[in-house]
Amino acid sequence: MTSGTLPFEQWLASMASRIEHVLDEAMPDANDEPEHLHDAMRYAVLGGGKRVRAALVYAAGEASAHHQGTTLSSAQAKALDLAAASVELIHAYSLVHDDLPCMDNDDLRRGRPTVHRQFDEATAMLAGDALQPLAFELLARMPVAPALTVQSIDVLARAAGSQGMAGGQAIDCASVGLALSQSALQTMHGMKTGAMLQASVLMGGVVVGAGSATREGLEAYSDAIGLAFQVADDILDVTADTQTLGKTAGKDQALNKPTYVSLLGVDGARALLAQLCEAAHEALRPLGSAGQRLGEIADYIVGRPH
Amino acid sequence: MTSGTLPFEQWLASMASRIEHVLDEAMPDANDEPEHLHDAMRYAVLGGGKRVRAALVYAAGEASAHHQGTTLSSAQAKALDLAAASVELIHAYSLVHDDLPCMDNDDLRRGRPTVHRQFDEATAMLAGDALQPLAFELLARMPVAPALTVQSIDVLARAAGSQGMAGGQAIDCASVGLALSQSALQTMHGMKTGAMLQASVLMGGVVVGAGSATREGLEAYSDAIGLAFQVADDILDVTADTQTLGKTAGKDQALNKPTYVSLLGVDGARALLAQLCEAAHEALRPLGSAGQRLGEIADYIVGRPH
Repeated sequence: MTSGTLPFEQWLASMASRIEHVLDEAMPDANDEPEHLHDAMRYAVLGGGKRVRAALVYAAGEASAHHQGTTLSSAQAKALDLAAASVELIHAYSLVHDDLPCMDNDDLRRGRPTVHRQFDEATAMLAGDALQPLAFELLARMPVAPALTVQSIDVLARAAGSQGMAGGQAIDCASVGLALSQSALQTMHGMKTGAMLQASVLMGGVVVGAGSATREGLEAYSDAIGLAFQVADDILDVTADTQTLGKTAGKDQALNKPTYVSLLGVDGARALLAQLCEAAHEALRPLGSAGQRLGEIADYIVGRPH
Repeated sequence: MTSGTLPFEQWLASMASRIEHVLDEAMPDANDEPEHLHDAMRYAVLGGGKRVRAALVYAAGEASAHHQGTTLSSAQAKALDLAAASVELIHAYSLVHDDLPCMDNDDLRRGRPTVHRQFDEATAMLAGDALQPLAFELLARMPVAPALTVQSIDVLARAAGSQGMAGGQAIDCASVGLALSQSALQTMHGMKTGAMLQASVLMGGVVVGAGSATREGLEAYSDAIGLAFQVADDILDVTADTQTLGKTAGKDQALNKPTYVSLLGVDGARALLAQLCEAAHEALRPLGSAGQRLGEIADYIVGRPH
């Protein structure tokens, strides 16, 4: 995993391939009862996505170890695999539920039918419901000091909960058709998207026992990229087409959802994105060369191609 | 909490009142943003239910301590509060999702409108989604050795997941209108209802660091009562009326769902229930007087009034 000399795009692809394998191994087999449910869970999780959250876990874990002048032990590498899998499972469940008719009612995700279109609504809901505890089960299996495991679980649980991702989703639902202020929009996205990105970064640090100075740097970095991710997403929603996105383009506009673009215009949103990228790099300065991959991920988020 | 001399019904009521208070304190305030979501979460969790799962956590924790010749420390009592709250949160979320239109489409629960009728579908789904991580967050806060916390989280996660509660629900959905064998019905209910009842008992033991002999007794006990609970429920579904049940009576029959009554008849189901009660008491024998409350809970489940 400590492949510091690979060009970024190759490193990112190798992490995506690594987490795909970890998830494949960690998920119940499609032949295990209940087969239909396991099939839907595997469909929801495997075979796609850029795996940015997993990459953040790996990069933050590696950065924390390097900053302490050590390299990852094989137990730590295994624990990072499980932590990375757990954030991907939570992310995957949230997409399944967001796509349901009572939410965004979307038919397409990553260029494929959404889970409730491929299976049915009840199966999609239950698949999402079952992915959540699996995430915590994987964390409970990490081969690190139990106190670090407990801290990781606490971080993930808060990020996924009513004052994190699920709460942001609730505010998003309630704000369709409303004119939100930039501050309200920021709060909503900070919860809906930012919280899990932050958790990914923090969990990488927690798993390897990062000290408080490292954790502070990671926290400031994660604040910036959490927001940057959403701003970039809002820009892509209006500038890219459906085929490039792999999901329905212009959906937010059509639903009259408040976005950074509707609030600031495309140019204004781009300027904010540049500021956030700068803030992410600034936060990494104390980590020195150990923060290289995290810096590259920030650049990738800001200019990210689909 | 160590109120060994209270008559059972009073003890059960005191535990229900205790967990109600713990849940009230542990849940986000309805005035915290997002208010609508927190309001729905509190509506789903507070103000009702017999709290059998919480009572099992408390009774198993107390039994384990007594069997080791000790009494509960205040830290252990606090940890049992959090463990009991976590199983109630998982149970509450499962009811909210089960009641949704894409599942059982029920309007009434504990004599009140279901969460999606009182609020809306999206809010009900998100409230359920947010209750799950809150359960794990509470466990992560338990003031016991981190290794015991990790074990508890593992037990809860497995019980709630695709090979536990959520999986049983999926099999239940898929079996509407089918003639299941008793063994298939048992597997389904063992997952859907039994897994969380078992987890409640086991977590009570884990939290106070019960030894393997105690845990084995608890496990056998929990197998029996997990099943007994469902058999009793099936009998009540056909023998009680809607007002007594606090939910729509005859619902399973109307949906043509396989039940112990449809399979064995009312008398056959009652005979099975008596066998299971005997098995529960047999499993508690090694615990001696320490198992008193658990035995009383088994009797209560078997003859339980609504």
